[in-house]
Amino acid sequence: MSIESAPVTPSSTDPAEGEFTPLPPHRGPLLIIGGAEDREGPKVILQRFVDLAGGPNARIVIVGTATTVPGEVGPQYLDAFDDLGVESAQFLSLSGRREANSPGAVEEIRGASGVFFTGGDQSRIATILGGSKVEEALHERHQAGDLVIGGTSAGAAMMSGTMILGGGDIVPSMTAVRTGPGLGFVDGIVIDMHFAERGRLSRLLAAVAVRPHELGIGIDEDTALQVDGSTLTVLGQGGVTIVDAGQGASVMAPAEAQEGSVALTGVLLHVLPSGYTFDLSTRQPQIVEAPRDATDLTAPTSP
Amino acid sequence: MSIESAPVTPSSTDPAEGEFTPLPPHRGPLLIIGGAEDREGPKVILQRFVDLAGGPNARIVIVGTATTVPGEVGPQYLDAFDDLGVESAQFLSLSGRREANSPGAVEEIRGASGVFFTGGDQSRIATILGGSKVEEALHERHQAGDLVIGGTSAGAAMMSGTMILGGGDIVPSMTAVRTGPGLGFVDGIVIDMHFAERGRLSRLLAAVAVRPHELGIGIDEDTALQVDGSTLTVLGQGGVTIVDAGQGASVMAPAEAQEGSVALTGVLLHVLPSGYTFDLSTRQPQIVEAPRDATDLTAPTSP
Repeated sequence: MSIESAPVTPSSTDPAEGEFTPLPPHRGPLLIIGGAEDREGPKVILQRFVDLAGGPNARIVIVGTATTVPGEVGPQYLDAFDDLGVESAQFLSLSGRREANSPGAVEEIRGASGVFFTGGDQSRIATILGGSKVEEALHERHQAGDLVIGGTSAGAAMMSGTMILGGGDIVPSMTAVRTGPGLGFVDGIVIDMHFAERGRLSRLLAAVAVRPHELGIGIDEDTALQVDGSTLTVLGQGGVTIVDAGQGASVMAPAEAQEGSVALTGVLLHVLPSGYTFDLSTRQPQIVEAPRDATDLTAPTSP
Repeated sequence: MSIESAPVTPSSTDPAEGEFTPLPPHRGPLLIIGGAEDREGPKVILQRFVDLAGGPNARIVIVGTATTVPGEVGPQYLDAFDDLGVESAQFLSLSGRREANSPGAVEEIRGASGVFFTGGDQSRIATILGGSKVEEALHERHQAGDLVIGGTSAGAAMMSGTMILGGGDIVPSMTAVRTGPGLGFVDGIVIDMHFAERGRLSRLLAAVAVRPHELGIGIDEDTALQVDGSTLTVLGQGGVTIVDAGQGASVMAPAEAQEGSVALTGVLLHVLPSGYTFDLSTRQPQIVEAPRDATDLTAPTSP
């Protein structure tokens, strides 16, 4: 398979250990945001989106499918991108199937260098855009590598093939999380957002308990994960929590337990702040630059 | 050392791998509760405390040092223990050093079969009881093995040698958690409570980042961890989350990061609901009874 013969990263670790099929390196980048990103201050994350989309010459389309208050959310982003010097930004509410299949909307997507998905309800993104002409155009442009796709909160959840819809039991259980299909711009992961702020570890663990081949990725607010091929890079104020239940982990239903609850043992956990990267193909964190003041308190992580 | 020549559990795993010095097996049990335990319904956790303390013949002393509303908290526990058929239960507020050193209070502790610490502010327990005659009596009776000590919320935090006092930054950092000395009834762990409910993963990780030889243990509300020697057993509605940063984990300060934030990689995570046990000497979960309907989705955890 030509994709695998062209590894995305020239890493010395062994890709055969990973469960992840590397993305074609020419795919466009993704910027997956954990919600509540700064829209009025230095806008570090939105600035990155603009940079990826071509700077001041970017042609940005904001998609408001997830929100039920487009009149509130749209102007916030238009103002933010205006502040960042973008001359061409427009808001498309795309709040119904008819719009999602309209030649006009498809034309806008085809002309964009960056498409940004607002927050709201991620199930609206799946039900309104799923299988639509707009989704088709997004995938075409993404695979051609000439479009950056960003999304925050609901717009982040939909990025993966499996999308968390809701949930929230305290104890991980087979029923503590509801999932459905996302738009699938990145494979091998399941994303949760507002992660530390809303204490969503249990729900993310519940998601990976039943699909241990997928990495669980929890993104804090005002924090983003940039996806370039199989390399994830953290950006912003918070951290990104990665749970890997696919290696030495096991999932068991205990003898004496309430309905459906499970024990998870041996899950690997990584928490990465801004500046760190993670390689999806090896399931290992990487350090791009040598850290200053590194305090390696124990043995280094073995691959 | 005589303690190590008398292993607490006849486990086949290798105790040499653990960092934990086993407790003398004759020490009294502890019941460490994550807060908000049921006091009006079936009272599963308080029932366990009563059972450990001798059933209806238990002589229970409730210590209200942590609370600033003893008039509210005291009657709740007196009613609960009365409901559970305990004939001898009394509430001691022990709200100052003078009381904590009074012969009368020491006498009550010496006569008790179970001492229960209420919630409140854990720093009050350390500053009022630390080094007092009451603390001395508690340790004597605990080490003699004829006293069960229970504690909820603040009364749970103080059980270990290192006690979490506060904190709450989203990203683990060297400064995201404030710790101080607890009363030290159990070594080798640091405890956080209201764990899932208040999303305290970051704070617990921050605590173990700087002391990777200690296991981080997060206990959910209405959930307890019973400590018998080096065996921990989960009881109640929620789960217990154990983070182990002492094996393959590493803690690093990234190149491009805000003040003090750290990355943690390769941390081992276990989440155990009611019915599961964990061995502190091997740092491994155990299953007491063979689970029914076990779904071992991946390879079993290797020791």
